[in-house]
Amino acid sequence: MWHLDPGRLFDAEPTQRAAARAIFEAAAELPLICPHTHVHASLFSSEGATLGTPAAVFVVHDHYVLRMLYSQGIHLESLGVPRVDGHWTEQNHRQIWQVFAEHFHLFRGTPCGLWLKQELIQVFGIQQRLTGETAQAVYDELEEKLALPPFHPRSLFERFNIEVLTTTDGPTDTLDHHKGIAASGWGADIRPTFRPDAETNLTSENWRNQIERLVLASGVTVRSYGTFVQALQARRQYFKMMGATATDHAACSAYTEELSRREAETIFQRGLRGEATDEDARRFTGHMLMEFARMSVEDGLVMQLHIGSVRNHNEQLYRRFGPDVGADIPRPLEFTDNLRALLNRYGNDSRLRLIVFTLDESAYARELAPLAGHYPALRLGPPWWFHDSPNGIRRHHDRVVETAGLQNTVGFNDDARAFLSIPARHDVWRRTAASWIGGLIAGGLVDLAAGKEMMLDVAYRLAKRAYRFDENRSEFLVHTKREGRDD
Amino acid sequence: MWHLDPGRLFDAEPTQRAAARAIFEAAAELPLICPHTHVHASLFSSEGATLGTPAAVFVVHDHYVLRMLYSQGIHLESLGVPRVDGHWTEQNHRQIWQVFAEHFHLFRGTPCGLWLKQELIQVFGIQQRLTGETAQAVYDELEEKLALPPFHPRSLFERFNIEVLTTTDGPTDTLDHHKGIAASGWGADIRPTFRPDAETNLTSENWRNQIERLVLASGVTVRSYGTFVQALQARRQYFKMMGATATDHAACSAYTEELSRREAETIFQRGLRGEATDEDARRFTGHMLMEFARMSVEDGLVMQLHIGSVRNHNEQLYRRFGPDVGADIPRPLEFTDNLRALLNRYGNDSRLRLIVFTLDESAYARELAPLAGHYPALRLGPPWWFHDSPNGIRRHHDRVVETAGLQNTVGFNDDARAFLSIPARHDVWRRTAASWIGGLIAGGLVDLAAGKEMMLDVAYRLAKRAYRFDENRSEFLVHTKREGRDD
Amino acid sequence: MWHLDPGRLFDAEPTQRAAARAIFEAAAELPLICPHTHVHASLFSSEGATLGTPAAVFVVHDHYVLRMLYSQGIHLESLGVPRVDGHWTEQNHRQIWQVFAEHFHLFRGTPCGLWLKQELIQVFGIQQRLTGETAQAVYDELEEKLALPPFHPRSLFERFNIEVLTTTDGPTDTLDHHKGIAASGWGADIRPTFRPDAETNLTSENWRNQIERLVLASGVTVRSYGTFVQALQARRQYFKMMGATATDHAACSAYTEELSRREAETIFQRGLRGEATDEDARRFTGHMLMEFARMSVEDGLVMQLHIGSVRNHNEQLYRRFGPDVGADIPRPLEFTDNLRALLNRYGNDSRLRLIVFTLDESAYARELAPLAGHYPALRLGPPWWFHDSPNGIRRHHDRVVETAGLQNTVGFNDDARAFLSIPARHDVWRRTAASWIGGLIAGGLVDLAAGKEMMLDVAYRLAKRAYRFDENRSEFLVHTKREGRDD
Repeated sequence: MWHLDPGRLFDAEPTQRAAARAIFEAAAELPLICPHTHVHASLFSSEGATLGTPAAVFVVHDHYVLRMLYSQGIHLESLGVPRVDGHWTEQNHRQIWQVFAEHFHLFRGTPCGLWLKQELIQVFGIQQRLTGETAQAVYDELEEKLALPPFHPRSLFERFNIEVLTTTDGPTDTLDHHKGIAASGWGADIRPTFRPDAETNLTSENWRNQIERLVLASGVTVRSYGTFVQALQARRQYFKMMGATATDHAACSAYTEELSRREAETIFQRGLRGEATDEDARRFTGHMLMEFARMSVEDGLVMQLHIGSVRNHNEQLYRRFGPDVGADIPRPLEFTDNLRALLNRYGNDSRLRLIVFTLDESAYARELAPLAGHYPALRLGPPWWFHDSPNGIRRHHDRVVETAGLQNTVGFNDDARAFLSIPARHDVWRRTAASWIGGLIAGGLVDLAAGKEMMLDVAYRLAKRAYRFDENRSEFLVHTKREGRDD
Repeated sequence: MWHLDPGRLFDAEPTQRAAARAIFEAAAELPLICPHTHVHASLFSSEGATLGTPAAVFVVHDHYVLRMLYSQGIHLESLGVPRVDGHWTEQNHRQIWQVFAEHFHLFRGTPCGLWLKQELIQVFGIQQRLTGETAQAVYDELEEKLALPPFHPRSLFERFNIEVLTTTDGPTDTLDHHKGIAASGWGADIRPTFRPDAETNLTSENWRNQIERLVLASGVTVRSYGTFVQALQARRQYFKMMGATATDHAACSAYTEELSRREAETIFQRGLRGEATDEDARRFTGHMLMEFARMSVEDGLVMQLHIGSVRNHNEQLYRRFGPDVGADIPRPLEFTDNLRALLNRYGNDSRLRLIVFTLDESAYARELAPLAGHYPALRLGPPWWFHDSPNGIRRHHDRVVETAGLQNTVGFNDDARAFLSIPARHDVWRRTAASWIGGLIAGGLVDLAAGKEMMLDVAYRLAKRAYRFDENRSEFLVHTKREGRDD
Repeated sequence: MWHLDPGRLFDAEPTQRAAARAIFEAAAELPLICPHTHVHASLFSSEGATLGTPAAVFVVHDHYVLRMLYSQGIHLESLGVPRVDGHWTEQNHRQIWQVFAEHFHLFRGTPCGLWLKQELIQVFGIQQRLTGETAQAVYDELEEKLALPPFHPRSLFERFNIEVLTTTDGPTDTLDHHKGIAASGWGADIRPTFRPDAETNLTSENWRNQIERLVLASGVTVRSYGTFVQALQARRQYFKMMGATATDHAACSAYTEELSRREAETIFQRGLRGEATDEDARRFTGHMLMEFARMSVEDGLVMQLHIGSVRNHNEQLYRRFGPDVGADIPRPLEFTDNLRALLNRYGNDSRLRLIVFTLDESAYARELAPLAGHYPALRLGPPWWFHDSPNGIRRHHDRVVETAGLQNTVGFNDDARAFLSIPARHDVWRRTAASWIGGLIAGGLVDLAAGKEMMLDVAYRLAKRAYRFDENRSEFLVHTKREGRDD
């Protein structure tokens, strides 16, 4: 029978293993804090929503799965990914599933393989190993279960023991699904996150459309840099009212620079005229990071920075399938000089909470841990994306904690698009962290009591505190719920 | 008695060790695939060839040994390395051997020390530890054995259980030794590799001579960029006919750019006039990498890229002794932007097989694993040179497989100049890989059956498949052998 | 009772642990070699000197402690750090200690936490865990002991079993405290190190003052680049006479370049007129590194390079508190191109001993180990600063030794400002190194006898040899002592 090793991811050495197991068990029942996900709120806004077919859930929309199959020469068309030009892609989900199952061995030794296995076994109770031979039988079982209420998103949310989950949303999003969730009286804590990348990237094709949408959403007529900032601030207020405690910002580099008001205006006007250069865009992004830090000082929203992913590296694939099909590739990063302007201006102010994520692990011990171990405003995010893996988590703890200290980290982000993968991701994090702390105990560096405290921190408390969930309840949610109860 | 620990390189923890041992044994008898070596074909073309004196084999021609001794202040002259100016170097090989033996402790904890010990014990049956005291007795024994037929290269090739071995050759090489091997009816599978670095580096002193040689070898009169490409293509065909399945390309950076035909021609003409600038050379190299990718799409030769070694860093030593005396030093690398032109043009085409090697390990998890885990044409080569070591192999698996998946790697390359070191290098690779997979098994991440499959992949199957040895037999070899049998 | 695990830092796996313990014990009684510290000689020049209050010793002057507390929002004023403007800072050392004790958990899993615990337990015999509750009782005990002669610096120096300790001193330092130590007849071997950074940084505010001081100290009137070099050489002679065996140089990058005499003079004159540009300063620093290498070839002083720390990154804090309050942050580094000029000129000369330190660990295996494993003049320093930690030491050995060989490293530098932390730092180094070597033994890579040799090397012999303490006794010290004995 296909099964999960109950001691998986704990170091094999008995002393360390025993310590890891002891502290893991102390944290095993803690609810999940999910402060950064890409799950859609629409999954939860109507009670009867379902997840879709097994192929849709596990393959077609999972860019981790797609990229691995694609790398081995399997065309995305045969995996059901829709083409921009509307040409044929596979519509037979059983066929897509068959291809996936036949190539399941490609995921050996990968975190994605670990999550998939755990989802199939723990969430759906699949008992036969997934292979080309068992593919259709497994499909039958999944299809049947996915239709049942216990496998609807809301039921799973409760079964997963999620205390709070945040989505990631553009400033112009109406957040209707969030309203719907609150209005339904269901009571789950699901919050938006303010992510204004599309509004700040002057040279993206869509930028001027995006500004028009911002005008509609905010009610502020944006004709100048000043009104642009006002419109963004208005939307931050709306997001905050809807329960948001954080913003999120992506950039290719960590470059920050404070432009004079006049320079900012000049560049912004060039953007409005469609004349902004790449250098304008680079400087404007660096300036807006400073501005968002200033806003965070004022409104208390936690500021997340995801730095260093080159989006849509594969232009051919991007033209054929659009974004998010697995061709975002990291590049080398520098933080010490690049973040200096922002940190010198706002880094000493504890009202700012800045959480930095990197895909360049060489910066962990070199720049980020020393910076986080100094500036009061700065915290270091957990291993991001490719590094959200057993070895990635080990390297993170190995390189960060000695210099930054655990309290300058923020626990775990599952960063999931795939809702089903959330428990498995937290489980890998918690087990790997338990094994690491078990190593500290076995090595005589901390005692069992301190190790348990560290475990509660990494599994639950740090994330809750870092994202200020302990300080903030959604006003809208509280208000609506009170009304709900009155009805 | 000097001996090898039968459990060497397996993790000491008993669960992991038992798993490592089990899967290692499953692969222990597999033949060696050697898809990238710097061994000379002349060793095998005549049946009676011998390896030379112990000092020649183990010291004078081994740049790993030379650089370590040199770093501790031992002059290369005293190690018998010939000077460019013909001045004195030590001719007494017993004396050279004595110096080596007295400093054998310098190799403690190094892979080179491991290989040397294993060669002395396993290949030659040496039973006394090599020290200054035992040096001459060991020399006696080695000298005697090296003269005996079982220690001639062909016998060792068979004893080493090498299934296929490739050499590395310039495009103008006549491959007479490869012909000789085939003509001799011996039957070993020894193939050339097409390495045209000397033809593409416009600013090297020798470049114009090299072009003249290319004209002679190809029969194509090279007066233009177009005829230059024709000449190279002709030589690729010849290499392919002689059994080559791969090309190899070295560059200081991974920069790629497609020049217009006109730009290429202009730069090439400046090169012919001896007027090419460093910038010309850099762009021409970047362009030729694109061209070689195009040729590989057409003729199916696997394309290897060895990126990032600064050759002959020590100019004083280079002037005194020439190249390859241990002063090639790695530099930091960037792949995401630099390879983008090539990957966007050819990376989605499965006819191209591009294998990238790096000496900058910080790129493993940051750029190379994400790229190899996406582009169908791209595979990641094994740890190169300094990183072909127990820790280097561990770091490679640790950082690459979670993101790229094992199937986007290519197993092992011994990259050996020293023919005798081949079995030891494969042994270190296989044991270290077995220990790593044993860790996955002990950690509950893969089961024993999957672990065995992974072991067969890393030890044998991946290399054979990646270099298309399964698809290609040397036409020349097959032809000659058939004739041979007819005689 | 609060205690130290006697097996701390040894790997938990029994085979490796037993080997680690065996070789650790072989080195346990060896005296400490401290070739690079920031301890002040004034601690030792008068017999009755004391260390100060517990808060002064453990908090106010320890930038490791300050930065961690500051990063969690504790103001430096409340930790007693004096402000540049003379405004209020906490004067109540019991209150400072209380804050420190209440936040002692922040140091969990950090090397600093490890040292502090070991100092409290081993040096002062503290038996209760430090917390907010026990803070004042612990303070009582520490205060009492610090006043007693066995806890005066000279007594501790002897109890710590320090064989030799070097301070770090500017060229204009009179070294009166060193003279005082020698003249006192105490007999401890305490030597200065020549660190001329303030003299070579043309764009620092203080540079011209510094030159005036250099004139006074050297007796050479500095009006030109030539006389500047003469003055520095005169001071080197003085330092050497006072027992110095080494110099130390910090730079933001490893850039080296030999300026022509004329260029050097021109830039130097711009400096004297206060007109030097940043580019001037960068080139002059690169040139002076070449010059100091030349001087080292001539006078035999070992040359240390500490590369890559951006000093006083936090300008706000720097303006308020001055330097050395924890805001020095590493940046990415390149060595292969940058050091090439220096290494090509002097790297083949064994009279030069150049020891390089880095805060960018990605350079360990990529550039520094290959360079140190080739150039006779080059050695690689131990893990520096943030990396002087259990994981940092492991990574150092993991990445350096396979390529550079152990003999191209230099053992340990404690780099301590905090005198009390010296034994704990050496203990962490020795234990972690023993565990690493134990792993080589358990892995069958070296035998126990060779492992013991390696242990003696890393714990004692390499440092002594690398800094030429075996070749040099302080002339001044020998002379004075002889006189002392004659009296």
